[in-house]
Amino acid sequence: MTSWFAGPKGENAEWFEGLLGRIALDYYSWRRNYFPEDGFVLDSHARREGEPFRDAFEDRLAELLGRLKADFPFHSPRYAAHMIAEQTLPSIAGYFAAMLYNPNNVSREAAPVTVRLETEACRMLCDMIGFDADSWGHLTSGGTIANLEALWLARTVAYLPEVVAEMRNALDLPPAHHGSWVPPLEEFTGLFDKAQANGWSLDDILAAYLGCEHCVVERGIAHVTAKTGRRPVLLVPESHHYCFEKACDVLGIGRRGLVRVPVDSTFRMDIDALDQELKKLDAEGALVIAVVAVVGTTEEGAVDPVDKILDLRTRRTSEGKPGFWIHVDGAYGAYLRTMTRPGRIGLGDPVSTVVIDGHQVDIPLDLPVGHACNALERMGEVDSVAIDPHKLGYIPYPAGAVCFKTDLVKPLLRQYAPYIGEAMEEPKAERKSEGIGLYILEGSKPGAAAASVWLSHSLIPLDVTGHGALVRETVRNACELHALLELWPTWHPDAGVRAVTLTPPGSNIVCFAFRPSGSEGLEGINRLNQHVFERFTMDEDSRVYGQEFFVSRTTLRPSQYREEAVAGFLERLGVSKEEYRESGVLLLRSVLMNPWYSQAKDRGRHYLVEYVEALFCEAERLSAGKA
Amino acid sequence: MTSWFAGPKGENAEWFEGLLGRIALDYYSWRRNYFPEDGFVLDSHARREGEPFRDAFEDRLAELLGRLKADFPFHSPRYAAHMIAEQTLPSIAGYFAAMLYNPNNVSREAAPVTVRLETEACRMLCDMIGFDADSWGHLTSGGTIANLEALWLARTVAYLPEVVAEMRNALDLPPAHHGSWVPPLEEFTGLFDKAQANGWSLDDILAAYLGCEHCVVERGIAHVTAKTGRRPVLLVPESHHYCFEKACDVLGIGRRGLVRVPVDSTFRMDIDALDQELKKLDAEGALVIAVVAVVGTTEEGAVDPVDKILDLRTRRTSEGKPGFWIHVDGAYGAYLRTMTRPGRIGLGDPVSTVVIDGHQVDIPLDLPVGHACNALERMGEVDSVAIDPHKLGYIPYPAGAVCFKTDLVKPLLRQYAPYIGEAMEEPKAERKSEGIGLYILEGSKPGAAAASVWLSHSLIPLDVTGHGALVRETVRNACELHALLELWPTWHPDAGVRAVTLTPPGSNIVCFAFRPSGSEGLEGINRLNQHVFERFTMDEDSRVYGQEFFVSRTTLRPSQYREEAVAGFLERLGVSKEEYRESGVLLLRSVLMNPWYSQAKDRGRHYLVEYVEALFCEAERLSAGKA
Repeated sequence: MTSWFAGPKGENAEWFEGLLGRIALDYYSWRRNYFPEDGFVLDSHARREGEPFRDAFEDRLAELLGRLKADFPFHSPRYAAHMIAEQTLPSIAGYFAAMLYNPNNVSREAAPVTVRLETEACRMLCDMIGFDADSWGHLTSGGTIANLEALWLARTVAYLPEVVAEMRNALDLPPAHHGSWVPPLEEFTGLFDKAQANGWSLDDILAAYLGCEHCVVERGIAHVTAKTGRRPVLLVPESHHYCFEKACDVLGIGRRGLVRVPVDSTFRMDIDALDQELKKLDAEGALVIAVVAVVGTTEEGAVDPVDKILDLRTRRTSEGKPGFWIHVDGAYGAYLRTMTRPGRIGLGDPVSTVVIDGHQVDIPLDLPVGHACNALERMGEVDSVAIDPHKLGYIPYPAGAVCFKTDLVKPLLRQYAPYIGEAMEEPKAERKSEGIGLYILEGSKPGAAAASVWLSHSLIPLDVTGHGALVRETVRNACELHALLELWPTWHPDAGVRAVTLTPPGSNIVCFAFRPSGSEGLEGINRLNQHVFERFTMDEDSRVYGQEFFVSRTTLRPSQYREEAVAGFLERLGVSKEEYRESGVLLLRSVLMNPWYSQAKDRGRHYLVEYVEALFCEAERLSAGKA
Repeated sequence: MTSWFAGPKGENAEWFEGLLGRIALDYYSWRRNYFPEDGFVLDSHARREGEPFRDAFEDRLAELLGRLKADFPFHSPRYAAHMIAEQTLPSIAGYFAAMLYNPNNVSREAAPVTVRLETEACRMLCDMIGFDADSWGHLTSGGTIANLEALWLARTVAYLPEVVAEMRNALDLPPAHHGSWVPPLEEFTGLFDKAQANGWSLDDILAAYLGCEHCVVERGIAHVTAKTGRRPVLLVPESHHYCFEKACDVLGIGRRGLVRVPVDSTFRMDIDALDQELKKLDAEGALVIAVVAVVGTTEEGAVDPVDKILDLRTRRTSEGKPGFWIHVDGAYGAYLRTMTRPGRIGLGDPVSTVVIDGHQVDIPLDLPVGHACNALERMGEVDSVAIDPHKLGYIPYPAGAVCFKTDLVKPLLRQYAPYIGEAMEEPKAERKSEGIGLYILEGSKPGAAAASVWLSHSLIPLDVTGHGALVRETVRNACELHALLELWPTWHPDAGVRAVTLTPPGSNIVCFAFRPSGSEGLEGINRLNQHVFERFTMDEDSRVYGQEFFVSRTTLRPSQYREEAVAGFLERLGVSKEEYRESGVLLLRSVLMNPWYSQAKDRGRHYLVEYVEALFCEAERLSAGKA
């Protein structure tokens, strides 16, 4: 792991700077070797005339480099705030190299190389999820677009059963008589094959499809809703990311189409609640676009019970009830899966040794166990997954991805662009071809991102021998931080404040709030934590060199979490439900993605202990100042 | 201009490589200077242990660099195919510098510096468009998302008149009595102010808004369509990009909600046809979400008559008819506006001198004139504009942008994210603040793109003294190519083929088809041009060093263009309307973005003449081989 990243002090930088220089040299040599006999266009005289511009350029660049110094030191073990840390050296080198060529992965015609790299990189991601060779994925600008694209497709699929019935009619095919429930996508594709076997041309079949009253792509949501009389809904756990509200709005379902399924006290979707919710929706006649499971929630790093959701679907369809599309929002946590490939790596000793006030102390770790692994290991059975390589994949922005269990989705996503070559191919060949541009929500997109993901993941395997070992360490570090926050008063009984954690980490994120020893009420508690946050963050006018640790914040809102989900936490915080309803709880939040804690520990630096000490010290000072 | 880019032979590369090296050195020094007393985590021993990884890294990188050599030489004057050429050196340096820090522009908390750079860069873009200080813009991953976001907002705005009426009711405010038509957005915002003045709290007003039966954000398209009984439609010219079909699908309007307005023979929206279409829709009671004007169409580089669309809206509203949202898809061509700032630069001499067979020849240029400038100069009056800096802005991917005429749109786009700081601010302050993340379709996004656009545009002004001069040259070059293609037979009367151009360039794109002297029918013509295309493009297995020129292709489809629009072209091509209906016409397409043609000409290289010669030579050979 020591060479994957530049190191907190740029320990690997000298070598890496040389590498970057060679990449640039190699690229510009390529330019010179393309029809070298053409000769230069810019001669020495012309270059000399460019001096004023170069002067201005250098000055403005110096300004930029100066301003950038006010950025957050994401790479440092002192930064434990948002979902960002180091980027792997291969990912930087890959991005930089391809950026010079500047390919556009919308089409092989603008990116013959990097489109293939994208296909290869997404194959690695599909393998990681557990999808088989029939799966298909591509890169996106990020998780929000990845989630939106998957739900866009799920919305089309949700109306396929009606579409199939209409098409059977139009194409004179007998109605289907299945012994058991068939996923709409397979039935739809099967229909195409059957119609072709019955002598229909592909054009006629497509025309029949586009002519359907239930073809939402053509007719729009209002028309198909009026036809079916069924309200479209999307089910998400209470712990969902805010991009799902946005997706419901964009997709025309409306934010009221978002059904929030309660989570349990560990912030994982309550499967009984989901079951009941579905029954209620059945009774109402609503149309379920998809059930979203979150793998790695934004606040808690929690992993929803994907396994149980799959089992519930099986149970329902075996009872003759409709199935549903399962989408995993793994934007943050899909990479947790690398801890379970090829077998579970295990989270190790449930005890960690730290040094408190010069004394070695063993502390118990509340490690997330079995249930998360059960969920991760069955991710390959869901229908679609959103993944952000630019989060837990340690790749620079922008690198999101969406993966589908089957490439049968491609004909449904397909667009027609007159100037993109893939349009000429036959639909069947298409599904297996490497084309991308016609099947995505976005258009032009950087081939550099593909080279970045490809180079990094092909060097650091997405399994327990590579990425999994790193992710495992981040989980242990989060559990250590959680224990330190909770146990601090046992070593410092006179501390004027307590830290109350929201829940033991679902993976590698810790949320907590300081509580003064006097009972101030929630307003005072929120004010205290807001002040602690301000002390451990920066704005553009701050000087990073003076800022020794970083934390982020979030708000536990009654509009997101029912009181039941947070009752235990509120009680430990000494806050009433009424107060919670009034204003919500401001939380401090640490994402433990930094890879260097263990190695620093080996050299005698206990950053997490220092971090907790600094937080407590400041919270106590601020709390006393208030009192 | 000589120093803006690396040069076709990397003439400026040596200096630039040094600059890149200094950027990397500067960045890693920053790491070392952050709490230097912390000491190293990776010592010499650890670094030595990383050797096997570094070896693998170098080998795999060598593989990547090798594979990338099969990429297209976008930088070369020999490449005149897709919408891509050089990137400015400042844009590469800016991207590279900020990429090392890897800020995330979703929030100032993850990007204190680059969010400000994004605001400054988008201010430059808004100024370029002609928007005033009330406008607001941000970067996106590209034009498709920029267009989608603008239409998403336009969809919300389209239902505001009904929402306002409902809210007046709910808030006990008297109905409005306007002497003239008020844009829905202004009326909506005015209502908020009036309600607050009448003692309503912001929370209550928001609740009233979200409770409206016509609030599409909350209720979804099906509900509001049922309420209004009005079919939502989007008007686009026939020449629109395929992303608008996608947007109609995604937004729930359905692709049948896309109304195609005929273009004239220069492929610009026919304003009388638009007028009639709107009258028809009035009569039907349809709800117009927006009228899209394209500035720089994908095939023709044509500029829609923005000025006349604005005048039509004024005329309609003065007659008491509803207005409509005007969105400009300037993904490709918004930068053409730089030719008109501060005044029109003029396209210069309508004659160009070229060297044909060793003789200097003057050729007439069919320069696009007045009407394009009229349109460009009034872009500042439209409601929203999509712009792709990664196209005619000469910035690396990914860099799109969407700009709104007024920041009054922000409350309508606003999302609530518990862990993003801007959520704490007051709505009024918000509108004027630099926050981005809560008002965009995407989530995480690269701050590096902001640094890239900022550095480039602050060094190369977006006016006639900078960018405008370059764009002007690309337009002249396209006109020269157009003339060369048309006039070639006058110099080579025995040529076995003719080139038939689609239309004189609307800006800097030329579409054309070769026509054999014998009449082969459209099938033969398409086959010929497909073969020419294949000869002037590559796939991954090609060797770029053997490929001397590049062209792209597109298809003129009857499903996109009515026969009337292309009748003149079909006639010149000697093709019947029946044949066109049958299969469409395959076109060769050259985007003339490369900045080096004039300077090469000064040195005696007439690349465009060589290009045309190579195309004719190959077309003739292929045509003869067929006969």
